[in-house]
Amino acid sequence: MAASDYGLMVCMIIAISMAFFVSADPEMLQDVCVADLASNIRVNGFVCKAKISADDFFFGGLARPGLTNNTFGATATAASVLQIPGLNTLGVSMARIDYAPCGGLNPPHTHPRATEIVFVLEGELDVGFITTDNRLFSRTIKKGENFVFPRGLIHFQINNGKVPAAVIAGFGSQLPGTQRVADALFASSPPVENIVLAKGFQIGNEVVEQIRSRLSP
Amino acid sequence: MAASDYGLMVCMIIAISMAFFVSADPEMLQDVCVADLASNIRVNGFVCKAKISADDFFFGGLARPGLTNNTFGATATAASVLQIPGLNTLGVSMARIDYAPCGGLNPPHTHPRATEIVFVLEGELDVGFITTDNRLFSRTIKKGENFVFPRGLIHFQINNGKVPAAVIAGFGSQLPGTQRVADALFASSPPVENIVLAKGFQIGNEVVEQIRSRLSP
Amino acid sequence: MAASDYGLMVCMIIAISMAFFVSADPEMLQDVCVADLASNIRVNGFVCKAKISADDFFFGGLARPGLTNNTFGATATAASVLQIPGLNTLGVSMARIDYAPCGGLNPPHTHPRATEIVFVLEGELDVGFITTDNRLFSRTIKKGENFVFPRGLIHFQINNGKVPAAVIAGFGSQLPGTQRVADALFASSPPVENIVLAKGFQIGNEVVEQIRSRLSP
Amino acid sequence: MAASDYGLMVCMIIAISMAFFVSADPEMLQDVCVADLASNIRVNGFVCKAKISADDFFFGGLARPGLTNNTFGATATAASVLQIPGLNTLGVSMARIDYAPCGGLNPPHTHPRATEIVFVLEGELDVGFITTDNRLFSRTIKKGENFVFPRGLIHFQINNGKVPAAVIAGFGSQLPGTQRVADALFASSPPVENIVLAKGFQIGNEVVEQIRSRLSP
Amino acid sequence: MAASDYGLMVCMIIAISMAFFVSADPEMLQDVCVADLASNIRVNGFVCKAKISADDFFFGGLARPGLTNNTFGATATAASVLQIPGLNTLGVSMARIDYAPCGGLNPPHTHPRATEIVFVLEGELDVGFITTDNRLFSRTIKKGENFVFPRGLIHFQINNGKVPAAVIAGFGSQLPGTQRVADALFASSPPVENIVLAKGFQIGNEVVEQIRSRLSP
Amino acid sequence: MAASDYGLMVCMIIAISMAFFVSADPEMLQDVCVADLASNIRVNGFVCKAKISADDFFFGGLARPGLTNNTFGATATAASVLQIPGLNTLGVSMARIDYAPCGGLNPPHTHPRATEIVFVLEGELDVGFITTDNRLFSRTIKKGENFVFPRGLIHFQINNGKVPAAVIAGFGSQLPGTQRVADALFASSPPVENIVLAKGFQIGNEVVEQIRSRLSP
Repeated sequence: MAASDYGLMVCMIIAISMAFFVSADPEMLQDVCVADLASNIRVNGFVCKAKISADDFFFGGLARPGLTNNTFGATATAASVLQIPGLNTLGVSMARIDYAPCGGLNPPHTHPRATEIVFVLEGELDVGFITTDNRLFSRTIKKGENFVFPRGLIHFQINNGKVPAAVIAGFGSQLPGTQRVADALFASSPPVENIVLAKGFQIGNEVVEQIRSRLSP
Repeated sequence: MAASDYGLMVCMIIAISMAFFVSADPEMLQDVCVADLASNIRVNGFVCKAKISADDFFFGGLARPGLTNNTFGATATAASVLQIPGLNTLGVSMARIDYAPCGGLNPPHTHPRATEIVFVLEGELDVGFITTDNRLFSRTIKKGENFVFPRGLIHFQINNGKVPAAVIAGFGSQLPGTQRVADALFASSPPVENIVLAKGFQIGNEVVEQIRSRLSP
Repeated sequence: MAASDYGLMVCMIIAISMAFFVSADPEMLQDVCVADLASNIRVNGFVCKAKISADDFFFGGLARPGLTNNTFGATATAASVLQIPGLNTLGVSMARIDYAPCGGLNPPHTHPRATEIVFVLEGELDVGFITTDNRLFSRTIKKGENFVFPRGLIHFQINNGKVPAAVIAGFGSQLPGTQRVADALFASSPPVENIVLAKGFQIGNEVVEQIRSRLSP
Repeated sequence: MAASDYGLMVCMIIAISMAFFVSADPEMLQDVCVADLASNIRVNGFVCKAKISADDFFFGGLARPGLTNNTFGATATAASVLQIPGLNTLGVSMARIDYAPCGGLNPPHTHPRATEIVFVLEGELDVGFITTDNRLFSRTIKKGENFVFPRGLIHFQINNGKVPAAVIAGFGSQLPGTQRVADALFASSPPVENIVLAKGFQIGNEVVEQIRSRLSP
Repeated sequence: MAASDYGLMVCMIIAISMAFFVSADPEMLQDVCVADLASNIRVNGFVCKAKISADDFFFGGLARPGLTNNTFGATATAASVLQIPGLNTLGVSMARIDYAPCGGLNPPHTHPRATEIVFVLEGELDVGFITTDNRLFSRTIKKGENFVFPRGLIHFQINNGKVPAAVIAGFGSQLPGTQRVADALFASSPPVENIVLAKGFQIGNEVVEQIRSRLSP
Repeated sequence: MAASDYGLMVCMIIAISMAFFVSADPEMLQDVCVADLASNIRVNGFVCKAKISADDFFFGGLARPGLTNNTFGATATAASVLQIPGLNTLGVSMARIDYAPCGGLNPPHTHPRATEIVFVLEGELDVGFITTDNRLFSRTIKKGENFVFPRGLIHFQINNGKVPAAVIAGFGSQLPGTQRVADALFASSPPVENIVLAKGFQIGNEVVEQIRSRLSP
């Protein structure tokens, strides 16, 4: 490299560095990468927005119970990166789940990307998860108690008590994802072909159709 | 630190280094960590064994088709770290799946720890996976073709053809794990309580019991 | 490799596989690796214990408020892998923090290994974190609200209200670690030499000694 | 934060959330991030495209043998993220390698980003890898057998048999990369200076030039 | 999928592949992802630029000592991804730190994203780090010696010698970040409220104000 | 779970917690995991030792130049986890490389597990790396300058100057591993069969044997 090239390069490095350092908040990008939810560019996670504030790290949506007047008598309210853009790249999120009394059920589901740990806010729940060798780990948990559902394994919570129940859940992912087993198989769009479900669950086609009709949105 | 301490330390470092370098194969540990499947010590993955050979990286168990005379008409044979100890820490494994003609089904299941990519050895399969917003992605694949099942999502393969089918599957984990949805929920030990399954699938207790009786081992 | 070697190897693989499959719960290790807190062997995280139950995933210690009659008027109670061995390798944990009214302070600290997200159980808190370019992001949060403290950055919470406050915190690590800045610098064992603290905080030696005397355990 | 600001923020969060949820397939991004190979924006991996289908997870290019009428008598056909955009972020890929009889050679190379496991489709191969302490691990593998080449280590396969051979390879990366040692050193552009190669391989300049002339494209 | 769709798809795959392979340097993206520091798009790390050269992997800015005529008598010069764009995605960087004689201090700080290892170029330093249980690990290091500061822990270096000192530091991150404890707490913008600092360090408001006035930029 | 079981469990948790907390340095394990190089147990990395000191984070072995009176006229001295046990789990290490004048060569090699960044201590070097599409990136670097060699790619340094040269290298791994290409292929034990090398480098068997004889240890 000739001397003049070297000078040019040093000059360019300085120019680039200056251009970078005089922009709004370059170092900030390194500590946090607040999701720009409005961007058209999609990456693994989200691109970062340039201007951020404390409100990007705040959420007020878990303060009130979710409605439980639905098929299962339970509802989950997320506090993920979609609600708290500051969570982007930080690997953690929360949710609140509310359960109607006398059978409110968060039906069997998995989180493909995260372990879940719950803290019971109110009431009492029967909870369980199943490992890949088909062993069930279950117990009853009460107000103030914690239980863990390992990453990717099917699990559920049911409120067999007589009062409403609620939990705060912590997840080891900014967006853990939720796949409800019955909905995925019997209420997908387009539908899974009958033979897969009939043979997979060892039921007749009429039962397949019955489940479909009750779960479809 | 006094001069004598310094001398002592240097001496100890040399001694430790020598002790290390005269052991059997110290650098080997760094390139590979062959699973010591016989060890009583359990860690995330496996502890490494001291003496290794090329055979730790070899497996002959996928050469012949697995038997398909079972409930689902399909069987998976693993080539994971349990069969190939050299795979430990290396993040990849394989399996062979064989399907009987006219309905051989690898029933809906997830791999909690890996994406799967299949290559069709023989025959033709209808395959699909479902995303967390309940969309089904499915198609038919034939001999020599590939299809991908993303990590943690429910998926299945069925041989609707008239000849046997077989695939080689590659996984992005040394031990991807397999959770068959119906078995996990209806054939676990101890059993999941009926109300969770009845409400979760919107079926009666008698259907729950029927599925249980057919799936239990 | 001679034919007899091959036969021997196949035989050994079968023997090893059988030895493995007849042991207690081999597949379990893959879904979870419950910490054996009593083991003498120390690894990154913990070795796994052989016999596990649902109670390994349970903790009851966050149900009651922690005592706040200490120097800072606040106390943190952990629900980490040390309390819930089932959390080992799963990348998430919780804690409960209680704050006395009128100034209860969780003093400036970092978690070297995790982002923290809090949910306010009771009361109201002034919270903040500081980025590496010395910008403060702070606000008041109330019952039912969330706030995020990004990984590794100095942060704090103070209860400037007139009633006790409490939060449930979720962490993206099984053991996030906590380094209280003032304790680390002024109450370490052995002590940091005075000149580092005096020059680092631009204070006199007598102020250094004063802080030491008040913070030392 | 003033009450009006709070209302504004809640309103904005709702607006942003709605804007997000009415777009095509927001949750999909979380389960998969199908590579937009046509995008001008380059990141680590690929940006995700908005509209996806089952065909993004399909590839038909490994069905037929690759041509082996080249210098080495072998050819590798990739089924990586460049051919199957659905593999983006999923950490696995495949390839097919075909070998001419009587010396078809996949010459010594590394995959900087992945371990490789092969399954022999046809024929018989002599395979090996070398660890960083210069130990060779090699053996013969036949139809239906597997062998593992650990990440980053130099390895090769040669068909010393009298019929064509072929393998399906699985990789623990969406794009493992391949660096053929001889090509990298003797056929780079611009060329590596002679002294490095002559001294590095302890050969004369005329041998360096000879190798160059035979390997250059 | 109809035959014509299949043909179309194959055709599109070929077209896309060709479009990809005829572009400037497609495979390059996989080996390296040189930061495009001028891009408006911000991701976790940086987007990659299309045209790269050896100079993207070079930096000349650590050759000369940094000025030490400042408050602390020490200065750090970074060789991170901001100075060497080729470091993007590669997980390592360097810095040079210079210390004035007789008390030049790199004041207590953390690197939220990296462990640091130093090599002493000149002079002699007293160095230390503090673990989360408030234990100090410290010693004196001289020219040619190394010391390690584990990720996220508070640490410092001071030149108690009579000649200038300098180190080369290696970091396990492309941009480790630096949070100086005293600056973060006493010189942030906006300021941390007095009560947090007064109570946190057990000092009076007047000392808080005094520290502020001396540290503010 | 019966009430007595619950009491028992709480009692056991307390007992286990106490057993844990009264041991020597439990929290330490979380901040650092100093390698116990003398342990018989091998894991991915190293098991941690119980008693640690500042000297576990110190090394004095890079102070003096390594001898360069060998085949290549260069020598590398490592400061990896094998020399500095405190580096275990921390993802970074260093080395010093010395080069004789007039051709001292660190011959073409890869580090399978790390990117390398060098800082020139003395002299001047011609350096380069080759990407997987066989492009060479090279230049001359002088005292005080940095250059980067991306992970897994073949690279080299040669001292074409008239005075000795030396660099300090930083690596993004506690034990990067080094595979010298020529040694791996021509000086392995057992040897790579001639046909692989002859065909792979397009040379005759006599050249293969010549290289072998000069490189063998």
